[in-house]
Amino acid sequence: MSFNTFGQMFRFTTFGESHGVALGCVVDGCPPGVRFTREDIQGALDRRRPGQSRFTTQRREPDEVKVLSGVVDHPEGGLVSTGTPIALLIENVDQRSKDYAAIAGAYRPGHADFAYDIKYGLRDHRGGGRSSARETAARVAAGAVAAKVLPGATVRGALVQIGDIAVDRARWDWDEVPNNPFFCPDAGTVPLWEAELDRIRKAGSSIGAVVEVVAEDVPAGLGAPVYGKLDADLASAMMSINAVKGVEIGDGFATARLTGEANADEMRLGNEGRPHFLSNHAGGILGGISTGAPVVVRFAVKPTSSILTPRRTVDRLGHETEIATKGRHDPCVGIRAVPVGEAMMWCVLADHLLRHRGQVGGFVRWPFEG
Amino acid sequence: MSFNTFGQMFRFTTFGESHGVALGCVVDGCPPGVRFTREDIQGALDRRRPGQSRFTTQRREPDEVKVLSGVVDHPEGGLVSTGTPIALLIENVDQRSKDYAAIAGAYRPGHADFAYDIKYGLRDHRGGGRSSARETAARVAAGAVAAKVLPGATVRGALVQIGDIAVDRARWDWDEVPNNPFFCPDAGTVPLWEAELDRIRKAGSSIGAVVEVVAEDVPAGLGAPVYGKLDADLASAMMSINAVKGVEIGDGFATARLTGEANADEMRLGNEGRPHFLSNHAGGILGGISTGAPVVVRFAVKPTSSILTPRRTVDRLGHETEIATKGRHDPCVGIRAVPVGEAMMWCVLADHLLRHRGQVGGFVRWPFEG
Amino acid sequence: MSFNTFGQMFRFTTFGESHGVALGCVVDGCPPGVRFTREDIQGALDRRRPGQSRFTTQRREPDEVKVLSGVVDHPEGGLVSTGTPIALLIENVDQRSKDYAAIAGAYRPGHADFAYDIKYGLRDHRGGGRSSARETAARVAAGAVAAKVLPGATVRGALVQIGDIAVDRARWDWDEVPNNPFFCPDAGTVPLWEAELDRIRKAGSSIGAVVEVVAEDVPAGLGAPVYGKLDADLASAMMSINAVKGVEIGDGFATARLTGEANADEMRLGNEGRPHFLSNHAGGILGGISTGAPVVVRFAVKPTSSILTPRRTVDRLGHETEIATKGRHDPCVGIRAVPVGEAMMWCVLADHLLRHRGQVGGFVRWPFEG
Amino acid sequence: MSFNTFGQMFRFTTFGESHGVALGCVVDGCPPGVRFTREDIQGALDRRRPGQSRFTTQRREPDEVKVLSGVVDHPEGGLVSTGTPIALLIENVDQRSKDYAAIAGAYRPGHADFAYDIKYGLRDHRGGGRSSARETAARVAAGAVAAKVLPGATVRGALVQIGDIAVDRARWDWDEVPNNPFFCPDAGTVPLWEAELDRIRKAGSSIGAVVEVVAEDVPAGLGAPVYGKLDADLASAMMSINAVKGVEIGDGFATARLTGEANADEMRLGNEGRPHFLSNHAGGILGGISTGAPVVVRFAVKPTSSILTPRRTVDRLGHETEIATKGRHDPCVGIRAVPVGEAMMWCVLADHLLRHRGQVGGFVRWPFEG
Repeated sequence: MSFNTFGQMFRFTTFGESHGVALGCVVDGCPPGVRFTREDIQGALDRRRPGQSRFTTQRREPDEVKVLSGVVDHPEGGLVSTGTPIALLIENVDQRSKDYAAIAGAYRPGHADFAYDIKYGLRDHRGGGRSSARETAARVAAGAVAAKVLPGATVRGALVQIGDIAVDRARWDWDEVPNNPFFCPDAGTVPLWEAELDRIRKAGSSIGAVVEVVAEDVPAGLGAPVYGKLDADLASAMMSINAVKGVEIGDGFATARLTGEANADEMRLGNEGRPHFLSNHAGGILGGISTGAPVVVRFAVKPTSSILTPRRTVDRLGHETEIATKGRHDPCVGIRAVPVGEAMMWCVLADHLLRHRGQVGGFVRWPFEG
Repeated sequence: MSFNTFGQMFRFTTFGESHGVALGCVVDGCPPGVRFTREDIQGALDRRRPGQSRFTTQRREPDEVKVLSGVVDHPEGGLVSTGTPIALLIENVDQRSKDYAAIAGAYRPGHADFAYDIKYGLRDHRGGGRSSARETAARVAAGAVAAKVLPGATVRGALVQIGDIAVDRARWDWDEVPNNPFFCPDAGTVPLWEAELDRIRKAGSSIGAVVEVVAEDVPAGLGAPVYGKLDADLASAMMSINAVKGVEIGDGFATARLTGEANADEMRLGNEGRPHFLSNHAGGILGGISTGAPVVVRFAVKPTSSILTPRRTVDRLGHETEIATKGRHDPCVGIRAVPVGEAMMWCVLADHLLRHRGQVGGFVRWPFEG
Repeated sequence: MSFNTFGQMFRFTTFGESHGVALGCVVDGCPPGVRFTREDIQGALDRRRPGQSRFTTQRREPDEVKVLSGVVDHPEGGLVSTGTPIALLIENVDQRSKDYAAIAGAYRPGHADFAYDIKYGLRDHRGGGRSSARETAARVAAGAVAAKVLPGATVRGALVQIGDIAVDRARWDWDEVPNNPFFCPDAGTVPLWEAELDRIRKAGSSIGAVVEVVAEDVPAGLGAPVYGKLDADLASAMMSINAVKGVEIGDGFATARLTGEANADEMRLGNEGRPHFLSNHAGGILGGISTGAPVVVRFAVKPTSSILTPRRTVDRLGHETEIATKGRHDPCVGIRAVPVGEAMMWCVLADHLLRHRGQVGGFVRWPFEG
Repeated sequence: MSFNTFGQMFRFTTFGESHGVALGCVVDGCPPGVRFTREDIQGALDRRRPGQSRFTTQRREPDEVKVLSGVVDHPEGGLVSTGTPIALLIENVDQRSKDYAAIAGAYRPGHADFAYDIKYGLRDHRGGGRSSARETAARVAAGAVAAKVLPGATVRGALVQIGDIAVDRARWDWDEVPNNPFFCPDAGTVPLWEAELDRIRKAGSSIGAVVEVVAEDVPAGLGAPVYGKLDADLASAMMSINAVKGVEIGDGFATARLTGEANADEMRLGNEGRPHFLSNHAGGILGGISTGAPVVVRFAVKPTSSILTPRRTVDRLGHETEIATKGRHDPCVGIRAVPVGEAMMWCVLADHLLRHRGQVGGFVRWPFEG
């Protein structure tokens, strides 16, 4: 059962609330002999960490990770996995619950607090409890381990749209991504987003965004038709991230407008006679199976529901009321979703690599080899 | 492991290839005491059945379903589930494999045959084998059982876009859907689609589409955060349908352009003091949990890769070549995806109903009851 | 969720009732390229088939298997798996339901019919429905496929005890097993069992038994501590067989009487410097992981509850009554459990082979190789 | 996949090695609204804690548990679950790794260290790493939560045999269990076991044992035929405990000697017309489903492999050698397995309660009610 566990062979279980003692995850199924360092995980967490610019929540969390199990010291330095579960712990430091006292009774329109109340009958209202995006720190930690399971592959994410302003794909430069607080791959768009987000932030408002994650040098053959398709699992992975409302693979919704001729990724032979595609409308996945072309996923992140403008709502006692949220929040929660999307891509790929190896036993077999 | 099984509590496993002896599914976990008839399942299959208009494949399959197990006759007529697995079998009748002889060696650009070859090293090339949309007949059969597990709910699907032509939402009429061969909810759009598809069909081409599925009167509280979210499972379910490249919930990708104010679904009290939403940007799901508002899912279906226009490709022996597909195919595979989308919605809802009942024990609990 | 599915990577789902139209299974996760014939499966079924001697039920079922999917013809003859689900169907022929009319209302002491009624509120009482040992035919079919996934290994089962009469282990001869109707490995015991079972059969009684299954040349390293241990999965597999009340690995319950010295399987180096054990108290499994030594499992099968002697019971209407069962039944259901035990051993081993290959990537790695 | 996760609806994942920083578990799927205290968990851990008598290992571990997530304070005191994952952490304090230096290279006959080396190629040899019985502390913590999910039921365990000395069942007294260091239900046997274990302990030897666990007032109807049978899951649960080599339900292996007449648990009507059984050979389970009678499980625990007497073995470098183990160990590891067996019983029952509630929707339905 999937409650708080993701994946099947490479799987992680997360725990912890936004304002509790700690959060973390248990990574289970990691192959033995995978080398990594605590700094690898910390580095990934640091990219997601809040409070690094005026465009993300001002909550200050060092997000220091402890590795509790599943590894031994490697003679040449760093850690090496033993094949047993890797538990990763992150303590909460800056959980200012009093900010939330005022909203304990009324539901934020568009927020999960109403849904948790209906489902469970009770909830941890401090900072959203388990529904807070803080849970994603645990995913990022798991993703840092997953990345070591696919040493040959590359996964990179970028923010491609904030509100109505999309990046100019002709100017796309992956090297630009770490140079700005938005994970923006287009230097020309950065000042536009700065202006837009300053306006949003000062208005106590919030805004939606679109994230794109691209995986390159992914082994062909990953994905288990028909209910373990690689794209189905990526869709589930990305949709499980807080505030995500849409996922697309390759050309996604644009394929609805295409003819079969326009959508066909034609093939030719390339290096060492290997087949390759002349285009990538499919986003690297056909029939739910990776083809060796880059795997391309995009997802839409809605604006956070925590805004200063009062909205009509109801409270837990059954009264109609209004609500405005004063806590520290991300004006554009899509920004910090970029490393989370990368982490989920890594975890899905690692999981499918092990699943493929289990059922089929090998890796990329070009069809006309041998 | 998800290979060919979908769902966790209400789960079904499908089997069978497009051109084999038979296909079918085993529905496991259906509660005991659920009443249905063989005709309920047959009726659902008939809606998906090919060859019903000139706009779908001309393959003639009666798709007659046999119920092999899991039921006893109900004293008042029809069948009643016993709680044991329900096996449903559909024999293939019109499998004209010879149409495919010409394409056995070369890969159709955009088709799964290349990916299957890479993954498995061998495949059943006759009609696409397991990658054929014919597998979806088994899902529709399973969905017809799932629908009986949620007697109070309604699930309806419609085609909302073919190529560049979208329906006019102001003219939306669910009663129009069965009156045309497109599952189109807007009578005014029907002639436009007829003209467009006749053109596509005569050109031996194909075209993409968008399907929308709406579930009403869904119990609130369904969905298990954070890795069993209702929307994550719906995303996985829809993305697992052949040719689907994008999924969105509620306003989906449009939320990227919204501010928090615009996106907030405000709340008031309605009948018997129950909370309700004044809008439904969220598509009935918050924090991965159903809220009681209609659950709205849309998915994009790419054009089928089987087209008459020759495309550059490679073959199994490692030669560059060209390919054109002459078999019987759907010019717009999105049309027949409508009942499949409905079936997957039913199955996801039935699964989450049982999961919720297992963990939490009851149903809709309005937060301020009692 | 495990309802009617067994296994994780190599998994099968069974369906069908004793007196329904058909029963069967869907084998999912079988690697591609596994060769077998329909006769391989039929041969396994024939060993389990009823009515082959006066010591098993006189129900006459040909148990002819149909392979519905998941294979293509191999150029050199027989079938080869494609990596997609293999559906196997067995039609019921000799389902004489009228025998059971008398017992429809009253519960057989020791039979599952009471438990099914309590759980599901209704059941298929004809021949026990899903609780009938007839379901095990589907397991045997699945086991025949599993056997082809481990071509180097051998699995053999034998009946080692009926009532108070155990075989003489000093006379154990595997070649004797097919020569008698009991799967008895000791020719000297056969006449004793014949006399005992004739007495039991004529009295309309039944008797318990013990089955032993031994797997040789099993790759070392199979089993996933701590909740996917090979022995834990074997225990579950064997206990899931009808009427089984106990399972033991290696010396089993006898180890409770041993000291650490007596129980230690000492090690020496053998062929090519490989470690081997000088004894096998452990039954080939340490810490839940196979060691390369023979895997030895024994399980106890209780006497069937269907007997001619009237027993006190209650009926569905809430009256106290007596019951005697007149249907065709096995006087010693343990006999036909032998091929079922073998099948479950194959399935567990195949499953763990794929799981190990998935997580760890290789096979037997002797610790001091390389 | 089961690697380190047990259960399906009520599930827990354990992590941590014997000599690492900490161990613990994440309990996922616990219903919301379940009340318990930290002391409930601590009390259960204290029963399993080492060093409480001269008959268990002298390692001193306080086993103090921290509750990291999944609960809020209850207004009336204690904690209440919120339906989100409950993470429980136990720090290791007294991990004297140097004791193990001498055995790092050679395999203890009968110990898992050889199997771990073969499987994973590397391992944490300090104290057995993940194969140590210290992992069972995490199970006991999970079991303490599970016990609160079935408030009406009772689970009690006892040691019933050490070596050749079994308790006298005629003198069985549950109240005696906490009065001696063996969880022995028979005061008369205690001095015999003291003498035997003193002898074993002084000889640096070890001895096997049998544990019995009985659950009373278990709802009828739990268990999902045919691969989620209650007894199959109990068999798996108990067999997964360190050093367990056999499991039996009810009369277990003794049923092999019984006739159908002797084995039949006859039925009569009792309180409020409810059916009850006049005997309990079945151990409360028929067809894999609980009947309402006490659920009775026994399991055999082999002697620990860590003994002072030198045994022949091989080492990691491929040499034949001898080994004697000087670390602190339990002379009879079966003693501390009693609370572990209880915990696993609680967890299996809680899991099946939620599963039953999910599929069937209610609880004990006596067949002829209503």
